[in-house]
Amino acid sequence: MENILIKQLYRETDKFVGKEVKISGWIRTLRASNKFGFIEVNDGSFFKNTQVVFDQSLENFKEIAKFAISSSISVEGEVVLTEGAKQPFEIHAKKIILEGKSDADYPLQKKRHTLEYLREIAHLRPRSNTFSAVFRVRSLAAYAIHKFFQEQGFVYVNTPIITGSDAEGAGEMFRVTTLDVKNVPKDEEGNVNCKEDFFEKETNLTVSGQLEAEIYALAFRNVYTFGPTFRAENSNTARHASEFWMIEPEMAFAELNDYLDNAEEMIKYVIKYVMENAPEEMEFFNKFIDKGLFDRLNNVADSEFGRVTYTEAVEILQKSGHEFEYPVEWGIDLQTEHERYLTEEIFGKPVFVTDYPKDIKAFYMRLNEDGKTVAASDLLVPGIGELIGGSQREERLDVLENKIKEIGLNKEDYWWYLELRKYGETKHSGYGLGFERLIMYLTGMGNIRDVIPFPRTPGNAEF
Amino acid sequence: MENILIKQLYRETDKFVGKEVKISGWIRTLRASNKFGFIEVNDGSFFKNTQVVFDQSLENFKEIAKFAISSSISVEGEVVLTEGAKQPFEIHAKKIILEGKSDADYPLQKKRHTLEYLREIAHLRPRSNTFSAVFRVRSLAAYAIHKFFQEQGFVYVNTPIITGSDAEGAGEMFRVTTLDVKNVPKDEEGNVNCKEDFFEKETNLTVSGQLEAEIYALAFRNVYTFGPTFRAENSNTARHASEFWMIEPEMAFAELNDYLDNAEEMIKYVIKYVMENAPEEMEFFNKFIDKGLFDRLNNVADSEFGRVTYTEAVEILQKSGHEFEYPVEWGIDLQTEHERYLTEEIFGKPVFVTDYPKDIKAFYMRLNEDGKTVAASDLLVPGIGELIGGSQREERLDVLENKIKEIGLNKEDYWWYLELRKYGETKHSGYGLGFERLIMYLTGMGNIRDVIPFPRTPGNAEF
Repeated sequence: MENILIKQLYRETDKFVGKEVKISGWIRTLRASNKFGFIEVNDGSFFKNTQVVFDQSLENFKEIAKFAISSSISVEGEVVLTEGAKQPFEIHAKKIILEGKSDADYPLQKKRHTLEYLREIAHLRPRSNTFSAVFRVRSLAAYAIHKFFQEQGFVYVNTPIITGSDAEGAGEMFRVTTLDVKNVPKDEEGNVNCKEDFFEKETNLTVSGQLEAEIYALAFRNVYTFGPTFRAENSNTARHASEFWMIEPEMAFAELNDYLDNAEEMIKYVIKYVMENAPEEMEFFNKFIDKGLFDRLNNVADSEFGRVTYTEAVEILQKSGHEFEYPVEWGIDLQTEHERYLTEEIFGKPVFVTDYPKDIKAFYMRLNEDGKTVAASDLLVPGIGELIGGSQREERLDVLENKIKEIGLNKEDYWWYLELRKYGETKHSGYGLGFERLIMYLTGMGNIRDVIPFPRTPGNAEF
Repeated sequence: MENILIKQLYRETDKFVGKEVKISGWIRTLRASNKFGFIEVNDGSFFKNTQVVFDQSLENFKEIAKFAISSSISVEGEVVLTEGAKQPFEIHAKKIILEGKSDADYPLQKKRHTLEYLREIAHLRPRSNTFSAVFRVRSLAAYAIHKFFQEQGFVYVNTPIITGSDAEGAGEMFRVTTLDVKNVPKDEEGNVNCKEDFFEKETNLTVSGQLEAEIYALAFRNVYTFGPTFRAENSNTARHASEFWMIEPEMAFAELNDYLDNAEEMIKYVIKYVMENAPEEMEFFNKFIDKGLFDRLNNVADSEFGRVTYTEAVEILQKSGHEFEYPVEWGIDLQTEHERYLTEEIFGKPVFVTDYPKDIKAFYMRLNEDGKTVAASDLLVPGIGELIGGSQREERLDVLENKIKEIGLNKEDYWWYLELRKYGETKHSGYGLGFERLIMYLTGMGNIRDVIPFPRTPGNAEF
């Protein structure tokens, strides 16, 4: 008999009613009397369990009644509708086989566990309801992102993870080496002899694929990256991890507004895809994790995102009468409290803040006509704050060279980035979306450690 | 006027004929007389260029005629059919604007360059025909893989890149550290004090996500990874890179044959997707890179893959009468010459070799009843050799523990891997596909450095 997925049973119930099927999965709950019993089986294909009813007619009835939680079993039986019951159907077992027993000390018994405890058993937590939902949604959101960009003809680019370029400057980096760190080879001046390292130079883990993505945008017009990035920052917050995945789209012949349009469309697309393809999981989040989730997501999917300049935003915040911990004045980097006040209290929906002061933004962002601001924009969303950052890129060779000089960077480190501006430069724009931030936003989960299968944070690299 | 993609012009020509359109792109070729001229423009959305015709009626006619190769331009004009000409249509320009000039020393002039030279200008090579085709196919193949697994309900898992686990044993690793390698902190015994490192232990770049993928298969039943993996091996061959992407599907309640079925279906799916969605690129490869490409790919898509045991394969090779550099006898690891002879000469199509001697395979592969072989299988394909490796995993706790002990591994390093066998183990199987090997196979490109945007090999980490 063909082994079918529980998802099929739920999605095409009519097809299976009255028929015999075979399913396999793990026991979530089991209760039995002397004469019959009920098993909730989950096979990981679907958020919900299926109920299996078994009775004394099975020759191994007594053993079945004692199967431990999390044992894996295969069940053959008839699919029967159960009108009025909690579950729409159940399986009347004709045969139940133990595939793999579970020890009685299984750490995930039915009682509730804290998220902190579950992090310590990251090899078992995906079997719990919460993480089953989180990681199925993560998978669907990743696919929705690929689907969105591929349908628009964007080319997916794998930018390098190991980078010999010190040019990104977006944060602290991890060093990658094959040198024997116990006996590091030194040169005559006592410095590390990087010539003996694997790549014959110092290399690090990338903090962003943007500069390389620009190379590809200037060949393929519209491209996107989707890969891991790294920050060796010693910050222990609920929103920071040392290893996380980023999506970095980059578009040639595109101005700042083109990035905003594309990002807005993308966010709405992903929300709709996940709501449509994981309704059970999303209902779970709305009910047990974040009661305002549906309201917030529907609001985002249906509303036109706000757009406001940084200068306007500063005025709005100053006039709001709200007392902030960090006072607001033109030129400051907006703090999370400012960002959340803007998006939650003032706009009540996502808002793009544009045209930030040049001194608080990266060197590659395009200088505006006013000489004071750059064509950059962050997307702020209720409940999270910054979800996306991006800009139009400085395409003018002379302006870019001056900027590099002005802030004391080494022009030679950027030789290929500058050459892009020599051979058929165009206006171009791009942005970065932290994938885990998006998953937190979609699920209402409050800690980045709970949306990454095996999170890496200072002092933590288990599994 | 809306700026449209050249791909749209080719795919929906009828819609645009007789209409005015605006396109933007880079000049591939330009020739002009005193009265009129022709520009081949490529915008990266499509493999082919579009031809723009311009004449003296344009006020900047003389400047246009001097535009350098690779300048970026925007063109407004009418789409006109060109019966009998090489290209199906052309654009009669009413306006041509220079977006960004190109310097006369542009390194990618029309003459042919060697692939080796193009690697040195990896920031410009995607603008050449060959690499435009390669990286568009790479993007489509990546999407086809996601599409295949998502349509089957597989959950996409991001396994960790930085690993504190020394348990994989698949190859030499890169160390990841924030220690000051010039002044490494030592403990009292003179050893490196890893407690002071970022993760408070020694960490490396992953060589495989398989063991973590098994965790997820035992919760979600069917899962796949698709991410970067690393090997710090000092091998300078055309088929090895230090950083490459792997796809590692893992399926619970699945025996060896289930992996073979899934892998065969997946390979055929990806071939068909790429042939359908990149016909122009594939034709280019078949014509200029590998004249046997279509024959080979069609043969794979249409044939049932062969299946032969290692023991049978050894007999076949011994009886073939062919003289191999490395003699064939039961127990040896098959060499590329043996693999290619099997798949090219004996089978003439892809072939799965199954049930290898246990001593030449990894510890986690399931021991067969004979006590001598394991339920492992490699997929060999003509022209390449090994494309996929996989196995049924050892699910029996006692057998696995014995194996770990037997080969001298440290049981404590595998605590969570062993615990999976305690709490509801099932038969499960999985495999690994090197993404770049697949791209080489799909395109006929002979060197892995030419299917990775910015390849990392010993001594090379440019860009």
